[in-house]
Amino acid sequence: MLKHLKTKITNKTAVIGIVGLGYVGLPLAEAFSKNFNIIGYDLNKQRVKDLKNGKDTNLINNKIKIFNPKLIFTNNLYDLQKSDFIIITVPTPIKKNKSPDLSFLNSAIDSLAKLNLKNKIIILESTIYPTLSSVCIKKIQKKTKLKVNNDFVFAYSPERINPGDSLNRLNNIDKIISVSNKSFAYLIKSLYRTIIKRVHTSSVLEESELAKIIENAQRDINIGFINEIVMICHKLNIDPNKVINLASTKWNFLKFRPGLVGGHCIGVDPYYLTHKLKKINYDPKIILAGRVINENYHKYLVNFLNFKKKIKKNSKILIMGASYKEDCNDLRNSKSLELASILDKKSKVSIFDPHIQNKKKYNFVKKPKRNYYDIIIITIHHSVFFNQKKFLYKNSIKKDGIIYDIRNAKFI
Amino acid sequence: MLKHLKTKITNKTAVIGIVGLGYVGLPLAEAFSKNFNIIGYDLNKQRVKDLKNGKDTNLINNKIKIFNPKLIFTNNLYDLQKSDFIIITVPTPIKKNKSPDLSFLNSAIDSLAKLNLKNKIIILESTIYPTLSSVCIKKIQKKTKLKVNNDFVFAYSPERINPGDSLNRLNNIDKIISVSNKSFAYLIKSLYRTIIKRVHTSSVLEESELAKIIENAQRDINIGFINEIVMICHKLNIDPNKVINLASTKWNFLKFRPGLVGGHCIGVDPYYLTHKLKKINYDPKIILAGRVINENYHKYLVNFLNFKKKIKKNSKILIMGASYKEDCNDLRNSKSLELASILDKKSKVSIFDPHIQNKKKYNFVKKPKRNYYDIIIITIHHSVFFNQKKFLYKNSIKKDGIIYDIRNAKFI
Repeated sequence: MLKHLKTKITNKTAVIGIVGLGYVGLPLAEAFSKNFNIIGYDLNKQRVKDLKNGKDTNLINNKIKIFNPKLIFTNNLYDLQKSDFIIITVPTPIKKNKSPDLSFLNSAIDSLAKLNLKNKIIILESTIYPTLSSVCIKKIQKKTKLKVNNDFVFAYSPERINPGDSLNRLNNIDKIISVSNKSFAYLIKSLYRTIIKRVHTSSVLEESELAKIIENAQRDINIGFINEIVMICHKLNIDPNKVINLASTKWNFLKFRPGLVGGHCIGVDPYYLTHKLKKINYDPKIILAGRVINENYHKYLVNFLNFKKKIKKNSKILIMGASYKEDCNDLRNSKSLELASILDKKSKVSIFDPHIQNKKKYNFVKKPKRNYYDIIIITIHHSVFFNQKKFLYKNSIKKDGIIYDIRNAKFI
Repeated sequence: MLKHLKTKITNKTAVIGIVGLGYVGLPLAEAFSKNFNIIGYDLNKQRVKDLKNGKDTNLINNKIKIFNPKLIFTNNLYDLQKSDFIIITVPTPIKKNKSPDLSFLNSAIDSLAKLNLKNKIIILESTIYPTLSSVCIKKIQKKTKLKVNNDFVFAYSPERINPGDSLNRLNNIDKIISVSNKSFAYLIKSLYRTIIKRVHTSSVLEESELAKIIENAQRDINIGFINEIVMICHKLNIDPNKVINLASTKWNFLKFRPGLVGGHCIGVDPYYLTHKLKKINYDPKIILAGRVINENYHKYLVNFLNFKKKIKKNSKILIMGASYKEDCNDLRNSKSLELASILDKKSKVSIFDPHIQNKKKYNFVKKPKRNYYDIIIITIHHSVFFNQKKFLYKNSIKKDGIIYDIRNAKFI
């Protein structure tokens, strides 16, 4: 099996199946398709239809070339049968109660188990909590009667896709891969090396599982820390922006900026970790501290602006930025939308986001009106809002209106 | 007053008094003495005597040239009278109950108030919590009947001295200064500019007060986070060192290492901040999270090693590193010593630290014995322990002994 697959990689005859064609799966499919035949599988029929038509609704930067004879999109699970490698990139979100929603992952494993997985390498890229790879392996073994490392190999290689980031792209970031069978580590590394320069391997699945989660938990805590500093500044009547700028002159101060934390990673991964910790009776002291602040920071800001008597009944409010982060159109767990929902109860809220055309439930505007709004709240620093460091839509505010910039924690 | 002092700086005839000649005051005195006459004042008679004899017991790197006719050391408060600028650098530690110990600061202010402070600039460099500068100003006004900004000027400029750090020295780091009277900001900046390139001013005292504290609180939390990851890894039976290394391959992962947090800054400043927060009824969610872990991490490690059955009754243990951090001899709040105290109850503990000759209560050794110890615990990575990445004292351990490296969270 090892030799056979080695030859297939060298000869570029290996076939790679990709399960899930979202933010992670599609760029991966596109990158690998330069060398290999790719079968991209997704449950979502509309998504597959769109991709077949060359339409990718997810991306803003780096448009992906979809018309490629080596890249096939399908809704038919059994098309994956001819794959040598199967990479799972399904979403692993959280439920309303913040516990892991493993339904996509479980259904992907269930589906794959219907195929003949003999001699295949299965690589999971979805974010999970430690020991979940082993659970997947056991499930596959049970359903297929195959034996891991004899009949098939399992690897865990967490995605590090950063939507809206034009610098850190799939091909120039470091990739980590943990492999169930040590002797296959080099093989899988050589596969990924065809699209990524720096690949690091490990032979303990849990190491990469935990590494991925702590990356995002660390960011969550650091943003939470800065958000708490803003709250403390308000309480002490000190300008948070100035304090952060002064502290940032120290060589080792970490220049995080205040902000709303949404999306599918930073706001989600800490809960995956703590879900596991609960199971092993470990009560986290720091891991969730960021969540405590960031989960409610938008509510805090509403109170802050209310307290400052900035929001009046029927105030016309413009929220600038709807996606969860800069320069992308990803609305998952967007706190800007939650902010809009709260403000909407009392005021007239419009949302402007040049990357998002429309969204039911919310009042999106195509362009902000001139001299119209009592309050503008800038939630996200989309680059198009700022033209050479100048805020472009200053003429949208009424004469006595106010503009609050969440990312700089200041009125502008 | 302003013009007069400007001329004195230009002509290099200004006299600078420095209150407190420790880690902060002495380097400052030495740096300023290249251009100005300095009166270095300290309550500690032995310290002043040592300095007069050219002996500085604090420093390892960058020996300070003390024989300088422009640099006078004194125990006599009234020698400070001729100063134009008085810089306060007294320690602001914490009490056993973790509340701020302001006795040194209060006594410095009380002493200074005995002088005629008319037309003087008083600059505080000690770490304090927000609004404490204003408290000092009020105290001075009350005692001297002088009026701030009319009769004297007060500035807050927190020290950023990093003991043992040969890269970030007084002259090449950024300095922040908040000044009670805006029109004196440029004057004080120009004074510091004679020894430091990059100086940033603000006219709100609280901004620099808070900036200083959050720099260290942020480090505390980040080290605490990594320490908690180690604890989680142990609980899950995963190698923490490997997990941290894998995570560190991500472009934005913050490469903090596990470790004991002692010293006079990181382990102290968060308590200064929370002391103030208590007063204003703000219940911190993140600020103290680092403390919860780091305050007890050494105890956790004892339990961990006990659990691993590594420590037996009468085990011969060598603790390598006594100072609170790498490459310095500063013992303040050293957790290595606390670790020694705990282990000493059951085992025979020796401490080896090439930077510290002796310390009562503890069994310091001049050189580790050969093939002697059952356990070596490396608490601090003094560079001399490692010779081209190799651990120098490997021959000190018995054949079946173990070496645990706290900074890498691994047995070596």
